[in-house]
Amino acid sequence: MSKNMALPTLKTVGVIGTGVIGASWTALFLARGLKVIVTDPAPGADGKLRDYLLKHWLTIPNAKVTQDQYLNNFKFVKDIDTHLGDIDFIQENGPERLDFKRHLFAHLDANTPEHVVIASSSSGLPSSEFITECTKNTARILIGHPFNPPHLVPLVEVVPHRGTGDTYATATLEFYRSLGKDPVLVKKETPGFIANRLQAAVCAEAYSLISRGVVSAEELDKTVTSGLGLRWALTGPIMTNTLGGGGYFNHFMNHLGPALKTWLDDMHQHEFDIDSRDADVLEDKVKDWISRVNLKEIEERRDELLVGLIRSKTERSA
Amino acid sequence: MSKNMALPTLKTVGVIGTGVIGASWTALFLARGLKVIVTDPAPGADGKLRDYLLKHWLTIPNAKVTQDQYLNNFKFVKDIDTHLGDIDFIQENGPERLDFKRHLFAHLDANTPEHVVIASSSSGLPSSEFITECTKNTARILIGHPFNPPHLVPLVEVVPHRGTGDTYATATLEFYRSLGKDPVLVKKETPGFIANRLQAAVCAEAYSLISRGVVSAEELDKTVTSGLGLRWALTGPIMTNTLGGGGYFNHFMNHLGPALKTWLDDMHQHEFDIDSRDADVLEDKVKDWISRVNLKEIEERRDELLVGLIRSKTERSA
Repeated sequence: MSKNMALPTLKTVGVIGTGVIGASWTALFLARGLKVIVTDPAPGADGKLRDYLLKHWLTIPNAKVTQDQYLNNFKFVKDIDTHLGDIDFIQENGPERLDFKRHLFAHLDANTPEHVVIASSSSGLPSSEFITECTKNTARILIGHPFNPPHLVPLVEVVPHRGTGDTYATATLEFYRSLGKDPVLVKKETPGFIANRLQAAVCAEAYSLISRGVVSAEELDKTVTSGLGLRWALTGPIMTNTLGGGGYFNHFMNHLGPALKTWLDDMHQHEFDIDSRDADVLEDKVKDWISRVNLKEIEERRDELLVGLIRSKTERSA
Repeated sequence: MSKNMALPTLKTVGVIGTGVIGASWTALFLARGLKVIVTDPAPGADGKLRDYLLKHWLTIPNAKVTQDQYLNNFKFVKDIDTHLGDIDFIQENGPERLDFKRHLFAHLDANTPEHVVIASSSSGLPSSEFITECTKNTARILIGHPFNPPHLVPLVEVVPHRGTGDTYATATLEFYRSLGKDPVLVKKETPGFIANRLQAAVCAEAYSLISRGVVSAEELDKTVTSGLGLRWALTGPIMTNTLGGGGYFNHFMNHLGPALKTWLDDMHQHEFDIDSRDADVLEDKVKDWISRVNLKEIEERRDELLVGLIRSKTERSA
């Protein structure tokens, strides 16, 4: 199959499931000028989706359509089966339950033209585990795991299973890029993919430091938001270390490698055990802080700053 | 000793060592209207410091003086000993060598009025290890470890040793806050303090994923800069998880704890060994990417965005 055959005319996206992730994907697809056919069995899902779209219109960067088009280019359907022939790409956002996904993917695979990519937003289950009952074309099935909310945060982890065709993976990466997203190709199925593993590494050490009384929960977070995170929003760990080594990653490794080892050894010795009493100590310490703050304000401020940060990064690179 | 006695009139700061960190501290102190007495034995250090100050004037947020005052309120001296009586706070930035620091701190302690805080920018050595030859007042010695560059990034890790007086630690935190910085109190001496440990956790996993071919070096970084890092610039791991749990940290832990454990187990099984051949594989893969980019442009863009990001965070919280 040639590269161009995978997504011949990508005009209509099918969205399965309109929870937080599915609704946000829908907003993004619509703002980029695509038509969306969307379904969700939950009562009142249609109305909730409309509310979500209206609420988030202004925060979507670089919309390519008018608000009117954005709000009218989708069709909410009770049964998507009769529409599967009109859809060029499927983004699935169902519950993270293996039995559910196995059944759903067998059904989608059987009823969707075989060239259409079916991407799952699954944050945990690898697609190799839920394609087991598919009979038509598992080569077009893969993970397209967004970072919440997808209409705003550019990252999508694209994770093919062993049998996913390169053509489909490439087409998926191109499709996401065409929406202004920054897809990352995860070349081997790995528990937690990339982002959740890096996040787990930070959280495990953060939990240990807080539960051991080395630093308060509030000040642990400040170490990130006033230091590490500012840098990581702009350069990742590899580039940060390369710049730190005067342009040479190996200079950095030679210089800081021994210290890194000492730190990691100490971290191993004080590893956080989620099943021990440490978890209670941690929760109490976190509660001490959280009970004193206004979460709604913090969340609003975060979202507002996030929009600004993404906008200035996009403008600066253009 | 009462709270107010520790730093009775904080007008003049002594800066020991004007490498990258010392020069940047000097720029910050001057921009905040303080007088600085500064010394460094390196040939040409005086001229280099002037160049640094001039170059970075425009990037310092919220300067409280004119450029003229900023450039003239410091005195570069060959021998700081005769000035130690005029200094209200010392920020030390000498080489990270234990013998050197032991000798230097014994000398500074003996020759500085005993109420004056002596803070070390040391990123690795804990102060308990280098106060061993001090005879006067070790209670006023502690770590004030900045995040590079100190004139820009708000984080400072304040790390007392067991014998540091609370008064001095509190006064140091207040002093850094008065400069517009976000100091964090590290309550127990810990290898790598907080930031370097969190960074090590991310790097170790990043190195493993890249050397194992799960993701390219470039895309590993993108996972951070287009996803995780954007969030961490605004909310730290604890707040992120609390918001992710609908306002309840324990909801998050109950919901994601089991997955977290699975990921961490898999990470342990694939731990990166810096002394193995994996390190060479990693360096080759990093080189593949770095050889294709313009580091100077990346660094300039990072610095420009960093200034903007810090500014917008400050404005939004005011």
